[in-house]
Amino acid sequence: MMLLHRSVVPGLQRACRLKSTSKLCIQACSTNDSYKPQHPSFTFAGGDSNTRGWRVMGALLGLGAVFAYHDHRCRAAKKVPRIYTREEVKSHCTPETRIWVTLGSEVFDVTEFVAQHPGGPSKLMLAAGGPLEPFWALYAVHNQPHIRELLAEYKIGELSPEDKAPSTLKTADPYADDPIRHPALNVNSQRPFNAEPPPGLLTDKYITPNSIFFTRNHLPVPNLDAKTYRLCVVGPHGRKSLSLSLDDLRRFPKHEITVTLQCAGNRRSEMTQFKEVKGLDWQIGAISTAHWAGARLCDVLAKAGHKLSETEAHVCFEGLDSDSTGTTYGASIPLARAMNPEAEVLLAYEMNGEPLPRDHGFPVRVVVPGVVGARHVKWLGKVSVELEESHSHWQRRDYKGFCPSVDWDTVNFDSAPSIQELPIQSAITEPQNGETIESGEVTVKGYAWSGGGRAVVRVDVSLDGGLTWQTAKLDEEEQRPRKAWAWRLWQLQAPVPPGKKELNIICKAVDDSYNVQPDTVSPIWNLRGVLSNAWHRVHVHVAP
Amino acid sequence: MMLLHRSVVPGLQRACRLKSTSKLCIQACSTNDSYKPQHPSFTFAGGDSNTRGWRVMGALLGLGAVFAYHDHRCRAAKKVPRIYTREEVKSHCTPETRIWVTLGSEVFDVTEFVAQHPGGPSKLMLAAGGPLEPFWALYAVHNQPHIRELLAEYKIGELSPEDKAPSTLKTADPYADDPIRHPALNVNSQRPFNAEPPPGLLTDKYITPNSIFFTRNHLPVPNLDAKTYRLCVVGPHGRKSLSLSLDDLRRFPKHEITVTLQCAGNRRSEMTQFKEVKGLDWQIGAISTAHWAGARLCDVLAKAGHKLSETEAHVCFEGLDSDSTGTTYGASIPLARAMNPEAEVLLAYEMNGEPLPRDHGFPVRVVVPGVVGARHVKWLGKVSVELEESHSHWQRRDYKGFCPSVDWDTVNFDSAPSIQELPIQSAITEPQNGETIESGEVTVKGYAWSGGGRAVVRVDVSLDGGLTWQTAKLDEEEQRPRKAWAWRLWQLQAPVPPGKKELNIICKAVDDSYNVQPDTVSPIWNLRGVLSNAWHRVHVHVAP
Repeated sequence: MMLLHRSVVPGLQRACRLKSTSKLCIQACSTNDSYKPQHPSFTFAGGDSNTRGWRVMGALLGLGAVFAYHDHRCRAAKKVPRIYTREEVKSHCTPETRIWVTLGSEVFDVTEFVAQHPGGPSKLMLAAGGPLEPFWALYAVHNQPHIRELLAEYKIGELSPEDKAPSTLKTADPYADDPIRHPALNVNSQRPFNAEPPPGLLTDKYITPNSIFFTRNHLPVPNLDAKTYRLCVVGPHGRKSLSLSLDDLRRFPKHEITVTLQCAGNRRSEMTQFKEVKGLDWQIGAISTAHWAGARLCDVLAKAGHKLSETEAHVCFEGLDSDSTGTTYGASIPLARAMNPEAEVLLAYEMNGEPLPRDHGFPVRVVVPGVVGARHVKWLGKVSVELEESHSHWQRRDYKGFCPSVDWDTVNFDSAPSIQELPIQSAITEPQNGETIESGEVTVKGYAWSGGGRAVVRVDVSLDGGLTWQTAKLDEEEQRPRKAWAWRLWQLQAPVPPGKKELNIICKAVDDSYNVQPDTVSPIWNLRGVLSNAWHRVHVHVAP
Repeated sequence: MMLLHRSVVPGLQRACRLKSTSKLCIQACSTNDSYKPQHPSFTFAGGDSNTRGWRVMGALLGLGAVFAYHDHRCRAAKKVPRIYTREEVKSHCTPETRIWVTLGSEVFDVTEFVAQHPGGPSKLMLAAGGPLEPFWALYAVHNQPHIRELLAEYKIGELSPEDKAPSTLKTADPYADDPIRHPALNVNSQRPFNAEPPPGLLTDKYITPNSIFFTRNHLPVPNLDAKTYRLCVVGPHGRKSLSLSLDDLRRFPKHEITVTLQCAGNRRSEMTQFKEVKGLDWQIGAISTAHWAGARLCDVLAKAGHKLSETEAHVCFEGLDSDSTGTTYGASIPLARAMNPEAEVLLAYEMNGEPLPRDHGFPVRVVVPGVVGARHVKWLGKVSVELEESHSHWQRRDYKGFCPSVDWDTVNFDSAPSIQELPIQSAITEPQNGETIESGEVTVKGYAWSGGGRAVVRVDVSLDGGLTWQTAKLDEEEQRPRKAWAWRLWQLQAPVPPGKKELNIICKAVDDSYNVQPDTVSPIWNLRGVLSNAWHRVHVHVAP
């Protein structure tokens, strides 16, 4: 038995009043008499296996933590700001170590507030141990005086002066000059940088904020100067090449489209579970959607003197990113697509109304709607029209699909076409695998998208491992016929079948050519782990 | 015991010499001594469940048959031609009843020749009980003197004079004027006529002969006169309509393309096995390929004054086939496809170098490459451009896909788009389900095709129910990029795994958007039984 006074645990009392549907539910006995011995009881439902380890919650608010908390509050009251390093803050990222965040130079202990967070506890936990700013930038609603007042209540100290701004390292490391990334990203590889937004944020908005748009880099990020940048567009035989500045590009008619980009390796982790592959272990987040603006490639090619040819030809792109030998990233698309105004291929210089972020190709990248991410060449340096596909490794020796029986000893990369349009795809972003859901009703959410401008016409969801199916509701962002370049978000609200202790939730989508996703992953397994578009499956427990 | 003299059974002896890989294998003891009592022993391997009932072969060449045969030969030798009716010939279509065929007015008993047929016994069995001409028209190699000589050996009589030409009935039956069809077709419905070529003929040739091209009629076949035929092309608002004769259409630039047509219901029989649907019970043959010639729809629409519109619009087609209430067949396609020269939509007046056969739309049908057969309107009477899709039943209340949970009580046809482009498809045409194959090596053959001009890039074949896969060899007829309108035939020669008594053979294809076929049929089941494109499975026995 332990003694608790209500004035010591204001957070707990707020938690009692909060009857939320959020994933973390804290229930405590009311403390109706001062100093009357009582024992608060806690029930924890759920947990988020993909965020930062708050699966084990049992020790929350143990005796030591309560006194530590009391100590902080006393210090705050006495106006004796305590000084912390970023490292110290970083170590406070679980309920057991308590949950600290920073805003500017101030440090806050928000452990008691987590359960009350209006956006859900899991969203706040993404910032645990680090700065709030990147998240408040995503959710501008936070920039209001009453929220800063609320936060002030939890202040426990200040950052040490040398820790107030992150340092920039200058070293021989070719990646040392890479930009700073959003802390919410789940990193698959630091060098080169490859990262995806967590499922909980992925479909929060139809347009993915730039800061958490999935990042697929093959090489260090070049640091380019918009003033000196030039794009070389090689002319046809006997004609001069164009050298276009960013301002030159801006003088072409500005074309704006919303396009979903997906890496060929999205959902590779599910293929890996069947059999090992070579590639980054992407979960379901190597896909994002942005509103892009730029010059149409067909306009730029026409200006350079190119025409649609009778014979098959290709538009080759070279990036300004390179490895230590000077090899640059490269890829190509068919000339027929590049020259077709309806295909809307862009040389994009804006992403969601801003200049492209460095990680996404500043100052100019290619955007090829409906086509695999690998062809959307970033930091674009050169465009040429060739009789053959790009000779780059990434066009000819990567990003191709093979029969499951083909291994690294038998593979013949010339036998398969380079991936251009991608097949129908969908995934569940809520609930997440391993989660515990409430009984009663379940909400299933996710995304669906198909390549080649094919619209998503239906998403079927099963709660019983594929025995029966229900049709999900597609969100209101309708797709244009033949130009369905952007994904469709969807959701299904359905009763949890009574008596079920667990659900095997599946989604599968259909596009307007009535292409469907395959049932299982092993028959589409391939040695590079690309094109992983089997039904997406999520196993959840049902709270008793 | 029975007495047999070698001169009586020349066919049997030939069969003994023939060590073929054909499906029917007849082995007999050699009859090395005249009048020496012997018992011929017969072994029958295989059989073809899809052709006319020769599954039960045990009684072949029993005593009665041998004497009947002897009787025929004697009559032939005595130049006493016996007279038969077509009905009598028709009843001789199995080894038990003996196998008769006609050529012109002559009747032949080819029972002994079946096993020696160079094209395989199953091909000859397609003609059993009827005329050879339709088959010899498919395989012109037969029109040679030595083949007629060979056949003469088997002559047993003549057709009765009144049976030499099939009668034409004139009755109140709206289908009485339908054309005569090729006897090889497997008929799914006589009125309206719906039929498919048997698997053994389906992929025998890359181009399907007109006479066995699958036929999908919704109504009686109109009997139209090429001289008086007129096509009405409605002009834009305020402009006169065109009335085009067949000669007018021929004056447009002639455009020729090879296109595969597939009914949305192809392979419906596999869906039916899972759960009942409404629709004709198509096997794998509701798909065929022809070389079409005609005027491009975009040229005809332009001549009528139509332009590509900013807003979505549709080109509606009306057939000249109608029911008793005067309702005509109708369908539509998006104007964007119709006006795109690259989409190559035709108003076709030639099929494989000949005027369209009546069953395939004489004198003019629409051919919409890459799109479901239902939009290739036959006996075309009227073309118009509308803001909405065709209001026909077949556009709005049929040929749409739904979630497996949707039944006739809950279906909302407006909630699904009309099928236009079809998904990736493939099927095995050899060996056939239930067949017995030789041990050693197996040859698996079939077709693969995808909608929207997407090329087939790979066909995977499994001999072990999907555990392991091999890549099939695609035939030499390559497909054009983005205009892969015609199917790809394929085959795999592979060792039969030693010791296996049966094989579960599966094929699955991949198109150039890397779309794949789903593993199983139940999750794509829909109440109309359309879009049945799960892996195709064939179960065969291996001869010991």
